[in-house]
Amino acid sequence: MKIMNFAASLRKDSFNRKMINQVVEILKSLPLIEIDHADFREFEMPIYDGDLEESSGIPHGGLKLIKRIQEANALIISTPEYNGGIPGSLKNAIDWVSRVDPIPFKDKPVLLLGATPGGLGTIRSLWHTRVPLEAIGAFVYPEMFGIPAANKAFDQEGKFINPEYKERLKNLISSYLRYASALIK
Amino acid sequence: MKIMNFAASLRKDSFNRKMINQVVEILKSLPLIEIDHADFREFEMPIYDGDLEESSGIPHGGLKLIKRIQEANALIISTPEYNGGIPGSLKNAIDWVSRVDPIPFKDKPVLLLGATPGGLGTIRSLWHTRVPLEAIGAFVYPEMFGIPAANKAFDQEGKFINPEYKERLKNLISSYLRYASALIK
Amino acid sequence: MKIMNFAASLRKDSFNRKMINQVVEILKSLPLIEIDHADFREFEMPIYDGDLEESSGIPHGGLKLIKRIQEANALIISTPEYNGGIPGSLKNAIDWVSRVDPIPFKDKPVLLLGATPGGLGTIRSLWHTRVPLEAIGAFVYPEMFGIPAANKAFDQEGKFINPEYKERLKNLISSYLRYASALIK
Amino acid sequence: MKIMNFAASLRKDSFNRKMINQVVEILKSLPLIEIDHADFREFEMPIYDGDLEESSGIPHGGLKLIKRIQEANALIISTPEYNGGIPGSLKNAIDWVSRVDPIPFKDKPVLLLGATPGGLGTIRSLWHTRVPLEAIGAFVYPEMFGIPAANKAFDQEGKFINPEYKERLKNLISSYLRYASALIK
Repeated sequence: MKIMNFAASLRKDSFNRKMINQVVEILKSLPLIEIDHADFREFEMPIYDGDLEESSGIPHGGLKLIKRIQEANALIISTPEYNGGIPGSLKNAIDWVSRVDPIPFKDKPVLLLGATPGGLGTIRSLWHTRVPLEAIGAFVYPEMFGIPAANKAFDQEGKFINPEYKERLKNLISSYLRYASALIK
Repeated sequence: MKIMNFAASLRKDSFNRKMINQVVEILKSLPLIEIDHADFREFEMPIYDGDLEESSGIPHGGLKLIKRIQEANALIISTPEYNGGIPGSLKNAIDWVSRVDPIPFKDKPVLLLGATPGGLGTIRSLWHTRVPLEAIGAFVYPEMFGIPAANKAFDQEGKFINPEYKERLKNLISSYLRYASALIK
Repeated sequence: MKIMNFAASLRKDSFNRKMINQVVEILKSLPLIEIDHADFREFEMPIYDGDLEESSGIPHGGLKLIKRIQEANALIISTPEYNGGIPGSLKNAIDWVSRVDPIPFKDKPVLLLGATPGGLGTIRSLWHTRVPLEAIGAFVYPEMFGIPAANKAFDQEGKFINPEYKERLKNLISSYLRYASALIK
Repeated sequence: MKIMNFAASLRKDSFNRKMINQVVEILKSLPLIEIDHADFREFEMPIYDGDLEESSGIPHGGLKLIKRIQEANALIISTPEYNGGIPGSLKNAIDWVSRVDPIPFKDKPVLLLGATPGGLGTIRSLWHTRVPLEAIGAFVYPEMFGIPAANKAFDQEGKFINPEYKERLKNLISSYLRYASALIK
C-alpha cells in the first residue's frame, strides 16, 4: 500500500511539517507500507483562474500533485487552520486537482491531521477540509487529530514532547490503515 | 456610505462578474451611495506562505485589497462555488488580508451573493464563505442570494432574463443597506 | 448484509418516507440483502435531558433504535431539512444513541438521502447531518442524493415520476453497497 | 433594551446554566437593561412532527418561547455541544419556533456562548448553532465565547474561578450590546 503524505503548509518550519515527519516515522515502522513523503512546495501553483486553465491548461505543479495522488493508494494530510477554516492554499490545490476527470481524490482514503499554536487544535480547519474532499468523492476517515499549542509540542529533534501524542497518532494511523486497506480496490 | 464590491472570480466572462454588474446598476439608482466597483484581478496575490510574508511582507495586491476594504463602509461580494465550498482564491485573499491588525473585515457589513451554472445556486459556497469572514469579525448579512443555472440567467447585455431576480436582488440590497447603515460607526 | 433504513420524519405522508420506500424497492431486487425497514415513529423519545438519563436511563424508544443500529451492518437514512440543517428530531435521536458505549454508529457505513418541497434538495441538511455522525465515528458515504420539489416528484403510487431519479438512486445504492461491504468486518 | 437569555440545557446542574448566571450578573450591573432570565425547562416541547402540528398546532411550551423571543430586543443563549454540534433539544426548539410567520428570530440580535467539560469549548456547537439561526434571519454576533473544562471553571457559588473569563465575558457582552442596540429598530 502506497501512502502519500504532505503538510499543507509552505512554511519551512511549519508545525504541520513536524507532524507529518512524526507520521512518516510511524509509517516506517510498519510492514508493507510504501511511503511517498511529499513537500507541498513541490506543487507550486498559481491561484485558480478559468481563463488561465483554458489558455495554458493545469499548471505544472498541479499536474505533479495529480500524478502523485493518482499513484497513491491512500493519503495523509496535515493542515494548518487559517481564519477558522481550510487554508486558501490547500483549497486552491484541491480546486486545480478537481479539474481532471475522474477526479484523483475520488474513492481515495484520506486521513486528516492538523497542528496549530492556537488552543483549539485546528478543529475548525479539519471539519472544513473534509467538506470539499468529500464533495469530490474522497473517503475521509471520520476520526481526525489536531494538536493545539503546537509551538510547545515538539522537541528540538522535532519529536512529540508528550508521549501520549505519539501513542494516539500511532493508534489512529493503525485504524486508518485498516479502513484504507479495506477500501482499496 | 461607500460600498466596495467585487466578484471573487478571475475569469473574464465570470457569471459572478455579471451578478456584480447587476448589483452596481441597482446601487447607481440609489441616493447617497458611493460605489467602489473593484475587479478581483486588481488584487493579484501569490498563495499565502508564512516565510514569504516574513521575508517580503504582504504582497502588493494584498495591500491594495486591504486598503480598499479599509476605505469602504460595507462590502458586497459575489462568489463562485468550487467543490462544494469557498474558492481557494477567495480564501487565500482572506488569509492575506487577515495578516494586518486590526483585521480590515472586522465590524464590516458584508453581503454575500453567488452565481453558478449548477443547480444549487452556490448555496454551499455561500455558507462556507460566511465562516472565515465571521471568524475574523465581519457582520455577514444573514440573507444571501445565489443564482443557479447562471449560464442561462443573463441576456446578451448581461442583464437578468428573469425579472424576479432583479426584483429579489433589489429588495435584498435595500434590506442589507438598512442593516449596514445601522452598523456603520 | 443487513441494511437498516428509515426516514427521519415523523409525518405520515412525509416525502422522505416515499424516498425510503423507493430505496426498499431497489434493495428488494438485490441478492443477499436483508432489509430492516424501520419507521422513525417506533423510536419515540423525549428531548435529551441529562437528569432524565440519570434517573431513568435511556428511554425505551432510544434503546430500540440502538438495538436496531447494532444489529444492522449498514444504514440508509433519508432526512428532511429544517431551517437549513439537520432536523432537531434526528439530532435528538443521535444524541440519545450516542450515550451507550461503544456508540452504535461507530464504524457503521451510512448513506444519506433527502427529500424536500424546496428547491435545494436538502443539500444543507445532508451536509449538517454528516457532521455529528462522523463525529461519533460513522463511515458516511461521500455521495448523497437529495430531491428538490419533492411534492411533485412522486406519483400516486409513491414512485418517482422522473425515471432518472430511480436510475440515479439505483446506481448510488450500488456504489454504496460496494463501499459498505468492503468496510463490514 | 430587553435581553432574553437562557441555557439550552435541561439539566439542573448544567454548566451552561452557570454560564448564563454569570451573564445575568454582568447584565445586572449595566444601566437600561431589562433582563428576561428564562429556564429552558419552561419551554417543554415534544419532538417536531408535522402531523402533530396540523392536528394540535404549536405546543404550549413552543408558544411560550415564541412569545418571549418576540418580546425581547436581543438574546443571549449558552449552549452545550452534543456530538460535535448543536444539541437536538435546541434545534428542535428552533424548528418549532420557525413555524410562525414572521419567524420570531428574524432581525433579532443573538449572542452565542457555550460551556463544556471537553477541551474544545463547544466551538463546533457554536458554529453549528449559528447556521439555523442565520438561515431564519437572526443577526448572530460574529464573536462567540465557549468555555472548555467547564467542570473546573466555576467555584461553589457558581462564579468563574479564572477572573479572565469574567473579564472576557464582560467585554464581549459590551461589544454585543453596542451591536444589538444599533440593530434594534
